[in-house]
Amino acid sequence: MFLEIAEIVAKPGEEQALERAAAAARPLFLRARGCAGMEFHRVVEQPGSYKLIVRWVTVEDHTVRFRGSEDFQEWRRLAGPHFAEPPVVVHTRDVLD
Amino acid sequence: MFLEIAEIVAKPGEEQALERAAAAARPLFLRARGCAGMEFHRVVEQPGSYKLIVRWVTVEDHTVRFRGSEDFQEWRRLAGPHFAEPPVVVHTRDVLD
Repeated sequence: MFLEIAEIVAKPGEEQALERAAAAARPLFLRARGCAGMEFHRVVEQPGSYKLIVRWVTVEDHTVRFRGSEDFQEWRRLAGPHFAEPPVVVHTRDVLD
Repeated sequence: MFLEIAEIVAKPGEEQALERAAAAARPLFLRARGCAGMEFHRVVEQPGSYKLIVRWVTVEDHTVRFRGSEDFQEWRRLAGPHFAEPPVVVHTRDVLD
Protein backbone atom coordinates (compact mmCIF):
# COMPACT_ATOMS: atom_id res chain seq x y z
CA MET A 1 0.00 0.00 0.00
CA PHE A 2 1.31 3.42 -1.04
CA LEU A 3 0.51 7.00 -0.14
CA GLU A 4 0.40 9.87 -2.57
CA ILE A 5 1.30 12.99 -0.56
CA ALA A 6 0.75 16.22 -2.49
CA GLU A 7 1.75 19.56 -1.00
CA ILE A 8 -0.75 22.16 -2.11
CA VAL A 9 -0.66 25.89 -1.38
CA ALA A 10 -3.86 27.89 -1.70
CA LYS A 11 -3.99 31.28 -3.33
CA PRO A 12 -4.35 33.85 -0.55
CA GLY A 13 -7.99 34.20 0.43
CA GLU A 14 -9.00 31.05 -1.47
CA GLU A 15 -8.45 28.57 1.36
CA GLN A 16 -12.13 27.87 1.92
CA ALA A 17 -12.80 27.56 -1.81
CA LEU A 18 -9.97 25.03 -2.06
CA GLU A 19 -11.36 23.06 0.88
CA ARG A 20 -14.80 23.01 -0.73
CA ALA A 21 -13.26 21.81 -4.00
CA ALA A 22 -11.47 18.99 -2.18
CA ALA A 23 -14.73 17.96 -0.50
CA ALA A 24 -16.53 18.00 -3.84
CA ALA A 25 -13.75 15.99 -5.51
CA ARG A 26 -13.40 13.36 -2.79
CA PRO A 27 -15.82 10.90 -4.49
CA LEU A 28 -13.72 11.10 -7.68
CA PHE A 29 -10.75 9.69 -5.78
CA LEU A 30 -12.74 7.16 -3.80
CA ARG A 31 -14.20 5.57 -6.91
CA ALA A 32 -10.83 5.33 -8.67
CA ARG A 33 -9.33 1.88 -9.19
CA GLY A 34 -6.85 1.09 -6.41
CA CYS A 35 -7.82 4.05 -4.22
CA ALA A 36 -8.18 3.05 -0.57
CA GLY A 37 -8.75 6.44 1.05
CA MET A 38 -8.44 10.20 0.54
CA GLU A 39 -7.79 12.86 3.17
CA PHE A 40 -7.24 16.59 2.73
CA HIS A 41 -5.23 18.14 5.55
CA ARG A 42 -4.56 21.71 6.55
CA VAL A 43 -1.01 22.26 7.89
CA VAL A 44 -1.30 23.69 11.40
CA GLU A 45 2.02 25.56 11.31
CA GLN A 46 1.70 26.91 7.74
CA PRO A 47 -1.63 28.64 7.05
CA GLY A 48 -2.66 28.23 3.43
CA SER A 49 -0.68 24.98 3.05
CA TYR A 50 -2.41 21.65 2.63
CA LYS A 51 -1.51 18.01 2.17
CA LEU A 52 -3.62 15.81 -0.02
CA ILE A 53 -3.06 12.25 1.19
CA VAL A 54 -4.40 9.45 -0.97
CA ARG A 55 -3.92 5.75 -0.30
CA TRP A 56 -3.29 3.68 -3.44
CA VAL A 57 -2.75 -0.05 -3.94
CA THR A 58 0.00 0.68 -6.49
CA VAL A 59 1.83 3.86 -7.57
CA GLU A 60 0.56 3.29 -11.12
CA ASP A 61 -3.06 3.36 -9.92
CA HIS A 62 -2.31 7.05 -9.27
CA THR A 63 0.28 8.04 -11.84
CA VAL A 64 -1.05 6.13 -14.85
CA ARG A 65 -4.70 5.23 -14.37
CA PHE A 66 -6.01 8.11 -12.23
CA ARG A 67 -3.96 10.83 -13.89
CA GLY A 68 -5.12 9.52 -17.26
CA SER A 69 -8.79 9.62 -16.26
CA GLU A 70 -11.61 12.10 -16.78
CA ASP A 71 -12.00 12.20 -12.98
CA PHE A 72 -8.47 13.62 -12.63
CA GLN A 73 -9.34 16.35 -15.12
CA GLU A 74 -12.45 17.10 -13.06
CA TRP A 75 -10.42 17.24 -9.80
CA ARG A 76 -8.04 19.72 -11.39
CA ARG A 77 -10.94 21.72 -12.87
CA LEU A 78 -12.46 22.04 -9.40
CA ALA A 79 -9.31 22.64 -7.32
CA GLY A 80 -6.66 23.85 -9.76
CA PRO A 81 -7.88 27.47 -9.98
CA HIS A 82 -7.19 27.81 -6.22
CA PHE A 83 -3.59 26.51 -6.35
CA ALA A 84 -0.97 29.21 -5.77
CA GLU A 85 1.66 27.01 -7.43
CA PRO A 86 1.90 23.52 -8.95
CA PRO A 87 1.56 20.81 -6.27
CA VAL A 88 4.66 18.91 -5.20
CA VAL A 89 3.90 15.19 -5.12
CA VAL A 90 5.73 12.21 -3.68
CA HIS A 91 4.76 8.59 -3.19
CA THR A 92 5.62 6.65 -0.08
CA ARG A 93 5.42 3.06 1.09
CA ASP A 94 4.98 1.93 4.69
CA VAL A 95 8.07 -0.10 5.55
CA LEU A 96 6.43 -1.51 8.70
CA ASP A 97 3.44 -2.89 6.82
CA MET B 1 -7.76 14.05 14.64
CA PHE B 2 -4.30 15.31 13.69
CA LEU B 3 -1.31 13.90 11.88
CA GLU B 4 2.29 14.44 12.86
CA ILE B 5 4.31 14.22 9.65
CA ALA B 6 8.07 14.12 10.25
CA GLU B 7 10.51 14.16 7.34
CA ILE B 8 13.48 12.04 8.26
CA VAL B 9 16.62 11.49 6.18
CA ALA B 10 18.80 8.47 6.92
CA LYS B 11 22.55 8.64 7.05
CA PRO B 12 23.88 7.01 3.87
CA GLY B 13 24.05 3.24 4.33
CA GLU B 14 21.95 3.35 7.52
CA GLU B 15 18.55 3.03 5.86
CA GLN B 16 17.92 -0.50 7.10
CA ALA B 17 19.10 0.32 10.61
CA LEU B 18 16.69 3.27 10.68
CA GLU B 19 13.84 1.06 9.50
CA ARG B 20 14.64 -1.50 12.19
CA ALA B 21 14.70 1.28 14.81
CA ALA B 22 11.29 2.50 13.67
CA ALA B 23 9.90 -1.03 13.90
CA ALA B 24 11.34 -1.42 17.40
CA ALA B 25 9.96 1.96 18.50
CA ARG B 26 6.47 1.49 17.08
CA PRO B 27 5.01 0.16 20.36
CA LEU B 28 6.30 3.28 22.16
CA PHE B 29 4.08 5.43 19.95
CA LEU B 30 1.10 3.08 20.01
CA ARG B 31 0.95 3.07 23.79
CA ALA B 32 1.19 6.87 24.07
CA ARG B 33 -1.88 8.78 25.23
CA GLY B 34 -3.84 10.07 22.25
CA CYS B 35 -1.91 8.08 19.64
CA ALA B 36 -4.21 6.45 17.11
CA GLY B 37 -1.68 4.98 14.68
CA MET B 38 1.95 5.11 13.55
CA GLU B 39 3.34 4.44 10.08
CA PHE B 40 6.90 4.76 8.81
CA HIS B 41 7.10 5.38 5.08
CA ARG B 42 9.97 5.28 2.60
CA VAL B 43 9.73 7.99 -0.09
CA VAL B 44 9.70 6.26 -3.47
CA GLU B 45 11.23 9.17 -5.39
CA GLN B 46 13.89 10.09 -2.77
CA PRO B 47 15.96 7.12 -1.57
CA GLY B 48 17.03 7.60 2.04
CA SER B 49 14.08 9.87 2.82
CA TYR B 50 11.28 8.75 5.12
CA LYS B 51 8.06 10.10 6.52
CA LEU B 52 7.02 9.20 10.04
CA ILE B 53 3.24 9.60 10.14
CA VAL B 54 1.59 9.46 13.54
CA ARG B 55 -2.10 10.00 14.19
CA TRP B 56 -2.84 11.96 17.38
CA VAL B 57 -6.10 13.01 19.02
CA THR B 58 -4.63 16.46 19.82
CA VAL B 59 -1.40 18.24 18.81
CA GLU B 60 -0.48 18.46 22.49
CA ASP B 61 -0.64 14.68 22.86
CA HIS B 62 2.44 14.77 20.63
CA THR B 63 4.19 18.04 21.41
CA VAL B 64 3.69 18.13 25.17
CA ARG B 65 2.92 14.68 26.52
CA PHE B 66 4.80 12.39 24.13
CA ARG B 67 7.82 14.64 23.68
CA GLY B 68 8.01 14.97 27.48
CA SER B 69 7.95 11.21 28.02
CA GLU B 70 10.60 8.60 28.59
CA ASP B 71 9.26 6.78 25.54
CA PHE B 72 10.20 9.76 23.35
CA GLN B 73 13.73 9.62 24.72
CA GLU B 74 13.83 5.92 23.89
CA TRP B 75 12.55 6.55 20.33
CA ARG B 76 15.31 9.09 19.78
CA ARG B 77 17.90 6.80 21.39
CA LEU B 78 16.94 4.05 18.94
CA ALA B 79 16.49 6.09 15.76
CA GLY B 80 18.38 9.35 16.32
CA PRO B 81 21.87 7.98 15.59
CA HIS B 82 20.68 7.15 12.05
CA PHE B 83 19.30 10.62 11.25
CA ALA B 84 21.40 12.56 8.73
CA GLU B 85 19.85 15.83 9.96
CA PRO B 86 17.21 16.96 12.46
CA PRO B 87 13.70 15.88 11.36
CA VAL B 88 11.35 18.51 9.98
CA VAL B 89 7.94 18.12 11.65
CA VAL B 90 4.51 19.54 10.86
CA HIS B 91 1.06 18.82 12.20
CA THR B 92 -1.99 18.60 9.98
CA ARG B 93 -5.73 18.31 10.43
CA ASP B 94 -8.12 16.66 8.01
CA VAL B 95 -10.53 19.36 6.86
CA LEU B 96 -12.95 16.80 5.37
CA ASP B 97 -13.30 14.89 8.62
